[in-house]
Amino acid sequence: MNHGPTVLVSARSDGVDNVMAAAWAGVLDFGDAPKVTVVLDKSTRTRELIEASGRFALQLPCAAQAELTVAVGSHSAHDMPNKLDYLGVTTFTVPEHDVPLVQGCVAWLICRLLPEPHNQQTYDLFIGQVEAAWADERVFSQGRWHFDTAPDELRTIHHVAGGQFIVAGATVQG
Amino acid sequence: MNHGPTVLVSARSDGVDNVMAAAWAGVLDFGDAPKVTVVLDKSTRTRELIEASGRFALQLPCAAQAELTVAVGSHSAHDMPNKLDYLGVTTFTVPEHDVPLVQGCVAWLICRLLPEPHNQQTYDLFIGQVEAAWADERVFSQGRWHFDTAPDELRTIHHVAGGQFIVAGATVQG
Repeated sequence: MNHGPTVLVSARSDGVDNVMAAAWAGVLDFGDAPKVTVVLDKSTRTRELIEASGRFALQLPCAAQAELTVAVGSHSAHDMPNKLDYLGVTTFTVPEHDVPLVQGCVAWLICRLLPEPHNQQTYDLFIGQVEAAWADERVFSQGRWHFDTAPDELRTIHHVAGGQFIVAGATVQG
Repeated sequence: MNHGPTVLVSARSDGVDNVMAAAWAGVLDFGDAPKVTVVLDKSTRTRELIEASGRFALQLPCAAQAELTVAVGSHSAHDMPNKLDYLGVTTFTVPEHDVPLVQGCVAWLICRLLPEPHNQQTYDLFIGQVEAAWADERVFSQGRWHFDTAPDELRTIHHVAGGQFIVAGATVQG
């Protein structure tokens, strides 16, 4: 089951940035008010930043970033205070959204936390309202992924176990 | 974001069986008490059966079942009372779990609904405790997927749009 796309989760609070990896993210709604879910362990620094700021971003890393994804998922800023610098994670921001975004990903979603204390405490489940979203047009355009016509290193990665990923494969019609 | 594996959701209540497709399913926890999430639209017959019985199964269809997956996702038992027969969906059950399971899938999870009325009403989000789970050993063993060494038609399928799916691709190490 757990081979949906791996996401990088980023947040900023009081000038502190962090990025973590999460294997369990999903979509709740793609209508007028798109929403996403992500499971964030209580031990993570990024979760603390999200609870403090009420904002986060989800982004989809690609095959070229498999090593970086494992690195940000294996080290906590609790133990490595300069984690992003140390791991060489380059971030950027876009106007009107004060949340760090990871360069080199293929899709980004900026979200406002919809506070649901019961879900957060009981299930480590966070729900976000998507406020802005865009993707690398080489792999996503007109509402569809186009991995077949893009460089292989831009394919999304889906964590299996122990740093092993399955990449998004060929397209079939049902 | 929405290219996690497509799941088939099945349920039984008062002798009535149904199966639907869902693109938005995920994992909440893989520890001692594994839990899953699935988004179920209020219009679906399967949701009614789950609310009545408190049980459901999630299963992962494979590339060979892309057409069947589109079919069960496109027709409602509200409009097609004999839906499973009409679409040629073959189900089976296993001892001690009174829920229909779809033949030909590559993984099955039998779940007990953890009632969360707020999530169900507000987000169409259902949470299940996994009570039994198993997979086709040709594609999943020892905690990992092995699509590279199995027939291509056993790869899981990830819905993109309009009946188009991405299949699980090659394996890379991070």
